[in-house]
Amino acid sequence: MKNFMEIAINEAKKAEKRGEVPIGACVVKNGKVISKGYNKREKTKNAINHAEIIAIKKACRKLHDWRLLDCSLYVTLVPCPMCAGAIVNARIKDVHYGADEKSEDNLCEKIFESTRLNHNTKLIKEEKYSEICSSLLTNFFKGKRKK
Amino acid sequence: MKNFMEIAINEAKKAEKRGEVPIGACVVKNGKVISKGYNKREKTKNAINHAEIIAIKKACRKLHDWRLLDCSLYVTLVPCPMCAGAIVNARIKDVHYGADEKSEDNLCEKIFESTRLNHNTKLIKEEKYSEICSSLLTNFFKGKRKK
Repeated sequence: MKNFMEIAINEAKKAEKRGEVPIGACVVKNGKVISKGYNKREKTKNAINHAEIIAIKKACRKLHDWRLLDCSLYVTLVPCPMCAGAIVNARIKDVHYGADEKSEDNLCEKIFESTRLNHNTKLIKEEKYSEICSSLLTNFFKGKRKK
Repeated sequence: MKNFMEIAINEAKKAEKRGEVPIGACVVKNGKVISKGYNKREKTKNAINHAEIIAIKKACRKLHDWRLLDCSLYVTLVPCPMCAGAIVNARIKDVHYGADEKSEDNLCEKIFESTRLNHNTKLIKEEKYSEICSSLLTNFFKGKRKK
């Protein structure tokens, strides 16, 4: 199996180079990456443009369908409520993530387990990548504070 | 005060005419409508394109900022988790809605009250418009089943 978390991390690094909070994602179907995305909130001055949203939009365009059936999403940080909601709306099967958020709400899990739609998404933490994904974010914010 | 819920309802009717689930929204700042949107999921074959997301994107573009400070959003149906998350991410002040969802999760409220960001959005039900907003949806799905 190809390493999809490393592809997401590579996307996060692209965001970092551009002065964006380093978060990256990719969508995978049948063992192939069908779309990638990194956070572009500052560049586009748009609250919607998180890594996951960009990857989901591209995947919908590629499959000509708003339903991303049998797709997995790999992302460096556990999704925020907006992205978690988009993932469920797009019927994504499972989400693999690296770093946890500080917040204790567990909103992502609650959204994935909601009975609102007849669809549930599985949330899987990739422990092996947790530290590298966290340190990307920590170093970015440390650098910001120094400036 | 202009009636912003009626502007959202008018947007929902545009969706209905195009065979989309009839949901409409507008963003208001300083008593003026700065953007409008209606659901375009089917036309664009994109899971992201809910009425609120379209209105938020347009408002960000108009204000050249991902922060929609001092803005209110009017929408015909209580926001789904994706849209609720986008509303909080965009720092919208309050949301006025017409119809309730069948789901008992109250995820929108939970997302608005989350301590994840240093921002909370107020959720306000416009009782006066609840029935008309609900009936737009009920009639749409009745029509779908007949076909």
